Formats: sequence, structure tokens, C-alpha cells
Amino acid sequence: MRIANLAGRLVLVTDTGAVDVEEASRGQFGPDPTAIYRQWPDFTAWAASTELPSGRPYDDAELGAPVPEPGQVFAIGLNYRAHATESGFDFPVEPPVFTKFRTSITGPVGDLALPGETVDWEAELVVVIGREARHVAAADAWDHVAGLTVGQDYSERTRQLVAPAPQFSLGKSFPGFAPIGPVVVTLDELPDPADLEIGCSINGEQVQKARTSDLIFPIPVLIERLSAVLPLQPGDLIFTGTPSGVGGGRTPKRFLVPGEEVLTWIEGIGALRQRCVPGTPHTTASTS
Amino acid sequence: MRIANLAGRLVLVTDTGAVDVEEASRGQFGPDPTAIYRQWPDFTAWAASTELPSGRPYDDAELGAPVPEPGQVFAIGLNYRAHATESGFDFPVEPPVFTKFRTSITGPVGDLALPGETVDWEAELVVVIGREARHVAAADAWDHVAGLTVGQDYSERTRQLVAPAPQFSLGKSFPGFAPIGPVVVTLDELPDPADLEIGCSINGEQVQKARTSDLIFPIPVLIERLSAVLPLQPGDLIFTGTPSGVGGGRTPKRFLVPGEEVLTWIEGIGALRQRCVPGTPHTTASTS
Repeated sequence: MRIANLAGRLVLVTDTGAVDVEEASRGQFGPDPTAIYRQWPDFTAWAASTELPSGRPYDDAELGAPVPEPGQVFAIGLNYRAHATESGFDFPVEPPVFTKFRTSITGPVGDLALPGETVDWEAELVVVIGREARHVAAADAWDHVAGLTVGQDYSERTRQLVAPAPQFSLGKSFPGFAPIGPVVVTLDELPDPADLEIGCSINGEQVQKARTSDLIFPIPVLIERLSAVLPLQPGDLIFTGTPSGVGGGRTPKRFLVPGEEVLTWIEGIGALRQRCVPGTPHTTASTS
Repeated sequence: MRIANLAGRLVLVTDTGAVDVEEASRGQFGPDPTAIYRQWPDFTAWAASTELPSGRPYDDAELGAPVPEPGQVFAIGLNYRAHATESGFDFPVEPPVFTKFRTSITGPVGDLALPGETVDWEAELVVVIGREARHVAAADAWDHVAGLTVGQDYSERTRQLVAPAPQFSLGKSFPGFAPIGPVVVTLDELPDPADLEIGCSINGEQVQKARTSDLIFPIPVLIERLSAVLPLQPGDLIFTGTPSGVGGGRTPKRFLVPGEEVLTWIEGIGALRQRCVPGTPHTTASTS
């Protein structure tokens, strides 16, 4: 299945276009794109046994975030070796976990308002949880995944790295800093969900390219480690970390400027597209 | 007003006990304790103009978290000078922000399962947002606050401080690590909402005592700084930081053990009470 959010309503994406789930299921499932993950086994059983009607064509710019209101958003830092090195960190013993606050989540296509002069890009594979996971072993972890989507972990480096305690969560949570989509793809649609090409380009120039098989902590290990601490719930998201090639790791450093277009893609899932525009500067005031 | 969650239903706490809001408002307001903050102006207007019926007596152990499903939970580190010093950090230029993941939230009274041998206590004042705040000046910030409640920011120090990137969010988000309550108190009930005594005791021994007027970044400044980055939404929570006296700041260090009872109180609001019990150890495995 390819699952999306078209104008706030849950749809399935087929060869012909978008099929409204509430209509096609005659109300068995509601229109809420986040709530469906709490009915995941019933939903997948229904979808497997149903002949869907023709879909309606749409443009990706009409799509909202496929999971607009996750209860918990986990984001993993330093999860590709070359990126940990370019960031000046040692390899972590445990996956470093922060959050992207919910108001940063947005749809796959649109403007990105730049709140400062040090906004960086981070292409990421994003996991959507479909079944509660608590004390789950890595070997069983894929059973708890509903599907995968593309994410960008836009990061305002000045705010992120402010002394003495780095502001990972806040510096990565300006509005629009967490576009996801265009669709959530279920695992059966992917030849190998643990080995996908991921990349990012700016105005057509490729800046990141890697394979998700290079993750230091692969998806099953992330689920094992996170679920050892707390329950992962249906609709929760895991941003799995970015490969090397971010702007802050270059010499000289390079950051996004208005007019640039950022394309982020993952093989078998799709692409995100943001056009950078000027934003309201955030103030980094001194202690009051 | 004093607002609580009694067995999953929104109630107002009066001298006689708990009044069910859905019943008393004849359905104008639903039973959801979190959703009410999206109707905050209407709700306060209704409450001010209504003669409430007699309440039913209850015990605090029957209460759930007064805001069980916040969209965003902001937690502030190092926000009292003496605590920053005991933790070995410099004073921050910006308030350090992490999250407590939503599944850590629980009601005011109950057992605290200890997942390790380095669980520490942190008494905190918690702000509940009542009106969206975006680019709000400190002088206007109180207008966006629905009320205040008591919180504990329980912290597993081993997981929190793991190298190379401290795990503030994850180490503070084991289940039950964010009790809040017993009630949300509106500002009009407090003589000075910016100056409240806060304290914590273990088995009757006082371990923390301070005044919230000692916050490095007071509530209005926190709202100004956070809202400069992202919108604060109704029902969002801000854990404002803990004063000195935590176990990790002592010589020798002291952490919670099964059988201990932790009492956390704030003047004019009420108290939390957790009894420590053995939990399932989390594993801190080496890199796979």
C-alpha cells in the first residue's frame, strides 16, 4: 500500500490516483490520517480483501503530511559513520535520541521559511509504527512497522549547537522543518526495506547520496533500543538519521539561501520538494 | 479554577469535591481533559458564569494526569543557578530544551517502577498553555497560560548522560517518569504565580526546597524564547526546570531505591506522591 493525506483526508494511492478510504470502506475507517495506525491490523486486512475503485489524479503539492499528528517523534543523531565523522563526534554507544516537535511537521511539497542564515539539510528515512512495541527484540521489530516514508530533518545550526547544552530538538523544530511524505509505503512494496538509496539535491546538484543499509543502528535495532525504554505507539515516527553531505560538514560551510530548491528522495518511496524563502529571524538573545 | 482528570473525565475541583464538566455543562464541553484547552476562552467564560453543583469526594490516587495527551512537551534544563552549578554546567545563554516523550506522562499518585540504579528526582513547576503563542513578548506571555501544575522530571542518569551525546529526552522518558497534577490551577487562584515555594522530600526528608522566583528564565521569558521558534499550542506543557538538591549533585551521589516514597509539592497547587518499586532493567548494550 501507498498511504497519503490528501487535503486532510486519508487516501490510498493507486496507479490511477488517490482513493478516499472513508468512502471506499463505507465508513468502516474514518478520514483521520494519523488515527488509522491505531486500527492497523483491521485496515491492512480490509485493504488486502477489497477491490478499490478508480482513483482521482492529484498533484503532490496537494498532499499534507501522511502522519500529521504523531503522538511521539523520535529523531536519531549521528547514525551514519561518515556523518558522525563530518560532525566531529565519536560513534555513539547508544543511538542519540532527540525530538522534532510536532508543529514542525508539514507536507512533502511547499515553501521552507528560513529563520536564519545557518539552515542545513538532512535527508532521512522515516519509520511509521503500526503496532505497539515494548521490549521488542530486533529480530521481531519489523512486525511493528506500518511503513516507511521520506523525511527532511532541517536544522538551524546556530540554535542547534548553542552552548553549553546543544539544542538539537529546538533547533530542528522551526515550522516546516519536518516535511514528510509524499506517501507511507508498506514493507511488502519494497524489495528490501533495509537497503534503499537515499539522496538530496539542491537546485539539481546532488549533495547527499547513500544507502540505508549503512545505518550504524538499523531500524530493527532502533526499535529494540527505544522500546527497551518506553512503548512505541501506532502512528509514532522515527527519523532514522542522515548520511554525510550536510552543509555544516563542508569546508567552507554551506547553508540554504532563499530561492534554492531542495529535493529529497528515497528509492521506492518518492520525493520531497521545498523552495527556500525568507523567514522571520529568530532572536538569539543573551541571558535576560 | 482547579481542573483535574478523574478516571479519564474532565472535572472541576471545588470545596465539596469533583464536578463532572460534561454533565454540569449539559454537553457544551466534552469529557476529554486535554481537548478542553482548545476551547479555553469559552470554557473559562462558562465556568465564571455557572453555579456548580456539589462535587463528589475523591482520593488523589483516583486522578489521572490533568493533561494526559499534550501535543508538545517542552522541558527546560539548568534553570535554577544552584542546580546548574551542582550539575557542573555553565549558565546557559538560551534555555536548554528537551522533551519528555508523551508515554512518560502519568497521574499524580502511584508506583514508580525503577528501570535502573541511578534514577533521580527533579521537582518542577509545569505550565499548561491555554492560547496559541507565536512570537509573543514576555510582557504578554501570561495571557497564553491556562494554569500551572506540579511535575516530577524523573531522570535515569546513566541513560541521560551516556556519551557522546547526552540523552536528556530518552533518559527522562521511561514510563511513569512524568507524573503531573494533582490539578491545573488557574492564575487567578494564586497570589503571585511567579513566586511559589517548590519542594521535594523522600520518606519525609526534605531534599529540595526553593522558590520559582529564582528561575533563571522565568515563565514569561520561556514563552518568549520558545514562541520565537515555534507555535505553542493549547494543551502543550512546559516543565520549567528543577532547583538544586537532586541526588546526582550530592557527594556521594544518592539515587532512588525500591520502598522510598517521593513527595513533590508546590505552594497553592498540591502534591505528587510516588512509591518506588523495582522495574524492568533497561539494557545499555554496546554498539551492535
